[in-house]
Amino acid sequence: MDEKIRQDIFKRAKQWIHEAGKHIRDVIDEPLYIDTKSNPNDLVTDMDRNTEKYFLEKIQQTYPDHRVLGEEGYGDDIQSLEGTVWIIDPIDGTMNFVHQKRNFAISIGIFHEGIGEIGLIYNVMEDQLYTAIRGQGAFKNEKKLPQLANKVLGESILVINSVWACPNKKINHEGVQTLIKRVRGTRSYGSAALEFAFIAEGIVDGYLTLQLSPWDFAAGIVLIEEVGGIITQANGEKLNLLSNNTVLCSNREINDLIKDNIELL
Amino acid sequence: MDEKIRQDIFKRAKQWIHEAGKHIRDVIDEPLYIDTKSNPNDLVTDMDRNTEKYFLEKIQQTYPDHRVLGEEGYGDDIQSLEGTVWIIDPIDGTMNFVHQKRNFAISIGIFHEGIGEIGLIYNVMEDQLYTAIRGQGAFKNEKKLPQLANKVLGESILVINSVWACPNKKINHEGVQTLIKRVRGTRSYGSAALEFAFIAEGIVDGYLTLQLSPWDFAAGIVLIEEVGGIITQANGEKLNLLSNNTVLCSNREINDLIKDNIELL
Repeated sequence: MDEKIRQDIFKRAKQWIHEAGKHIRDVIDEPLYIDTKSNPNDLVTDMDRNTEKYFLEKIQQTYPDHRVLGEEGYGDDIQSLEGTVWIIDPIDGTMNFVHQKRNFAISIGIFHEGIGEIGLIYNVMEDQLYTAIRGQGAFKNEKKLPQLANKVLGESILVINSVWACPNKKINHEGVQTLIKRVRGTRSYGSAALEFAFIAEGIVDGYLTLQLSPWDFAAGIVLIEEVGGIITQANGEKLNLLSNNTVLCSNREINDLIKDNIELL
Repeated sequence: MDEKIRQDIFKRAKQWIHEAGKHIRDVIDEPLYIDTKSNPNDLVTDMDRNTEKYFLEKIQQTYPDHRVLGEEGYGDDIQSLEGTVWIIDPIDGTMNFVHQKRNFAISIGIFHEGIGEIGLIYNVMEDQLYTAIRGQGAFKNEKKLPQLANKVLGESILVINSVWACPNKKINHEGVQTLIKRVRGTRSYGSAALEFAFIAEGIVDGYLTLQLSPWDFAAGIVLIEEVGGIITQANGEKLNLLSNNTVLCSNREINDLIKDNIELL
């Protein structure tokens, strides 16, 4: 991707994400229309939908040849990653948005010919924007984030939802339990995008989850790779941006150790 | 307890907690001396110790007849709750303090003849102080917190550390797994005091944990009771302020439902 074009896209995406976030903060206390999707706990609100439409309109006006893959489905029917594709979660952590009015993010990953070029994760209520451009490092607002520390598993904090320690069809829960017992501590925040941002920032050290969609991790891929982290499927394979995935994310050492020693699948 | 004295104690405790918190914020980026206690993941820092000493000195100067039970052990050897006892966790969530430099709290519960009179939980880095005086409601900074909503279990967010879903000696982990599957979602933040504050605030709805010390929940008791919540041992018995406890905390409906339907012990 041409550098001038990439910088132009980055600048606009940053501006739009700030604008969308400011709007959400302005109306955060107004009544919400809440609906459910695949199950009673899979929430969606008019704010998810309107925020996605806002980005779609901006992108279509400015970059008519770009395509959009959005959680709420207003974008394009994406079957390949040809050209430039914006992968957008307008509100990542909708349950937090509804229950907590905080701890949610706007997540935008911009891919060109299948390569992650730009990642933006905006912690809306905290007004903290995590950004990365491939090859140019990662930032939290204006502050450059250092490369991930070489922490060992026993001194690491792992992000994992407790549901994965329970018997389930997606994973060997006994392997998950072994992992939980070997780390220093576990946390769960309820927004995958923020959880990737927290790893990039170094405040947690790993994240294991068994079902994420492309919009949950597209921005995270760019951010994590720019701080020297590894983000793959739980079996070590490359993430697939056209389907749901298991995700394992951490520094290289922990990633190798988990893959070599713990039977997750 | 005399109302004038209670207000006086509350006013000073609030001032001291703000001062201690400001000091922590001022030096948050300076190097830390980190030590471990009962196990390699049970961290303590010079900041935990110095903060406890700060409170102890203030209390001894101002209220020489009051006693102090503090996590770091600089206070009194408390074998009963006679008189006025300050129960203090100088930094609740030390692992977060060390790894994240945020998401930790100062927690102070003040008991008189065994009755919780005052609770203060200070989210230091966010400068958010949760307070409660028995019979006078709970507050987040200056804002009064409403009574807990009558949410049902299936629409609730439960705070639970994933370790309790793994086989362990303290609890029937299969009961915990049943509970995890019945709620809308789970979270884990790594500071018991903040987790009580978040329940009081209504951003999460329940908290189950298998091992807390008095300084972890003393302030929480006052705060939770002032918003109409229930805070007991996992078997429904009253919390014991002189020993470690299991803790179950939520609105009354969820509390009853869990106790009547899920075999936790």
